[in-house]
Amino acid sequence: MNLWIAGASITDFGELWNRSLFDLLEEASLGAVAQAQIPAEDIEAVFVANMGAGAFEGQLHLGAVVSSFFSHFPPAMRVEGACASGGLALLAAEQAILSGQYKTVLVVGAEKMTDISAEQATAVLSGAACQHSECGSTFPGLYALLAQQHMQQYGTTREHLSAVSAKNHRHALNNPHAQYQKEITVQAVSESAMIAEPLRLLDCSPLSDGAAAVVLSSERVANDNPRITGFGQGNDSLSLAKRSSLTSFVATQRAAQQAYSLSGKQVQDFPVMEVHDCFTIAELLALEDLGVFAPGEAGSATLARETTYGGKVVVNPSGGLKACGHPVGATGVKQVAYLAQLLREGQYERALAHNVGGSGATAVVHILEAGEES
Amino acid sequence: MNLWIAGASITDFGELWNRSLFDLLEEASLGAVAQAQIPAEDIEAVFVANMGAGAFEGQLHLGAVVSSFFSHFPPAMRVEGACASGGLALLAAEQAILSGQYKTVLVVGAEKMTDISAEQATAVLSGAACQHSECGSTFPGLYALLAQQHMQQYGTTREHLSAVSAKNHRHALNNPHAQYQKEITVQAVSESAMIAEPLRLLDCSPLSDGAAAVVLSSERVANDNPRITGFGQGNDSLSLAKRSSLTSFVATQRAAQQAYSLSGKQVQDFPVMEVHDCFTIAELLALEDLGVFAPGEAGSATLARETTYGGKVVVNPSGGLKACGHPVGATGVKQVAYLAQLLREGQYERALAHNVGGSGATAVVHILEAGEES
Repeated sequence: MNLWIAGASITDFGELWNRSLFDLLEEASLGAVAQAQIPAEDIEAVFVANMGAGAFEGQLHLGAVVSSFFSHFPPAMRVEGACASGGLALLAAEQAILSGQYKTVLVVGAEKMTDISAEQATAVLSGAACQHSECGSTFPGLYALLAQQHMQQYGTTREHLSAVSAKNHRHALNNPHAQYQKEITVQAVSESAMIAEPLRLLDCSPLSDGAAAVVLSSERVANDNPRITGFGQGNDSLSLAKRSSLTSFVATQRAAQQAYSLSGKQVQDFPVMEVHDCFTIAELLALEDLGVFAPGEAGSATLARETTYGGKVVVNPSGGLKACGHPVGATGVKQVAYLAQLLREGQYERALAHNVGGSGATAVVHILEAGEES
Repeated sequence: MNLWIAGASITDFGELWNRSLFDLLEEASLGAVAQAQIPAEDIEAVFVANMGAGAFEGQLHLGAVVSSFFSHFPPAMRVEGACASGGLALLAAEQAILSGQYKTVLVVGAEKMTDISAEQATAVLSGAACQHSECGSTFPGLYALLAQQHMQQYGTTREHLSAVSAKNHRHALNNPHAQYQKEITVQAVSESAMIAEPLRLLDCSPLSDGAAAVVLSSERVANDNPRITGFGQGNDSLSLAKRSSLTSFVATQRAAQQAYSLSGKQVQDFPVMEVHDCFTIAELLALEDLGVFAPGEAGSATLARETTYGGKVVVNPSGGLKACGHPVGATGVKQVAYLAQLLREGQYERALAHNVGGSGATAVVHILEAGEES
């Protein structure tokens, strides 16, 4: 499978009141092309990941917006699957390359969420849940149900959840683009304001502005280009009420199995991962569904420092959604862009990215490997 | 290129106050699977075309909605490119099949536009224009600029525009799903209320609810399956102010050239077409950019009945966006679904579908051919 990451770029994530959605899309897009060191005209198609610009800003048709950054106006489309939009846009781009239609394409994800009130943004984000059976629910409320069930079934504790958040904040200290570059203690998470029992303020990823982009190519452009060697997508019932389990995401399990199978790799082959920690409980679910830990064991492992440097696997070195920030359309692209940079620098040989839409109705897994010496 | 249309389905188009977006998506999806006469579990992936459900109804994540209609929850994504969403979702699906990733996929497009006021809907639709340089413009206003330019440059007349609308209303009499099954005269169009000089009420496609779906397969499922033998996409500046021409859409020209080249066909090979007539002027632009008529000649040709039965080419037999209706996400899929049915019935051997996003920033062309006898 010839899918090379020729270039990658991530903007600052945060409350960027002086940057528009257009600014962010342009910075990430041109940054990825610049890193790839290819002429801009080599971009044959564009795939834009965005969830809610139509509702956040009244701007739809973002494919055409990004196409307009290039004088040759490459064909462009927007891909959406709630918070998994980034992972899905990567998949669409990969399929377009593998079809032989294009050799080199740009994938850019962005979201501009802080120009409206937090109440309005929460309402837009609720559009990722089932508006028939979950109308009126918020995402903290839906993930709180999952957390309660996990605590009841496996004995997951308040401290386990807090350890996820504290660890991701600590990791973000290494990421200059992160929204929060500030260490927080396990105790501070446990004592933060209650949002939806048992989830507290510091269990939740923030509203963020930001963008990320990668240039994918069917050919290796430079020796240090990492490679995508596996991908997978799983779906499940949009409505939690119709799920077979509330303590795992079948969509993640399916996506991971496909990606492992395609790449010929197993979960223990990955020393580093970016996983979808929109809430602390989501990181525990991810680690169990990916097979890193047995069901119910991710919380205690996190507390025992198994998911940070020196442990079993480094999870969310960027700071994750919690501390790096979660501009929803950007997230899935950012995970791959961030890991690509670590591989490019020679820090790791293999990495895994895991992106979730809604409360687990959509999941996408990508596997990256450092390019062999040519 | 092995891309067969195994099944197709179109719901009623209109003001469907007793049908939800979910109802419409489900009817079209299951209808296409039923026509294909395949088990529902054979659907390996779903591509959903929709422009504005996030803004119209607060429902994003429509891929997961449609996936949930199937007990095996196939992987799903939503594709958006304003009014070209349908054509783009077909392209994404075709690329996924041609990549070898999937053999059989569902493409379904839908929009539910009549649950909010016409003023609110107009604001949502304006999201397809550039919210930097065209903020405050409506689509009738933008297309009115194009119409004025065409009239000035080529002498296109009020009567030419009216003839497009009267012809499409006449065609819709044959389409039981059409929103308007009512003949209107050229004079009635010319005397209807002014919306944006020179465009009048009966120059404009309506707000519509509706859905359409096709099942695409890498294998012929039945002898009467039509085949997709060409596709193409073109883009151009989102903002009209930055266009090289206001009397043609470069995006359409590019999409058509790609599709003609891929299929080995020329414009004169098509006895029937569905083209994007969101406004009467748009049909004239389409016919000139596709090469059916020389620049400036589509208006007089339409008045001379060259674009209806007995003329050079039958344009918009469904009634087009004007009379069949324009539920935006559905439109590009409906064009292909409607033509597929005509080919399946043996009425034509070849057909062309042309779908536009915004005021010409995105265009998609598809070429369909009747399957040869096996």
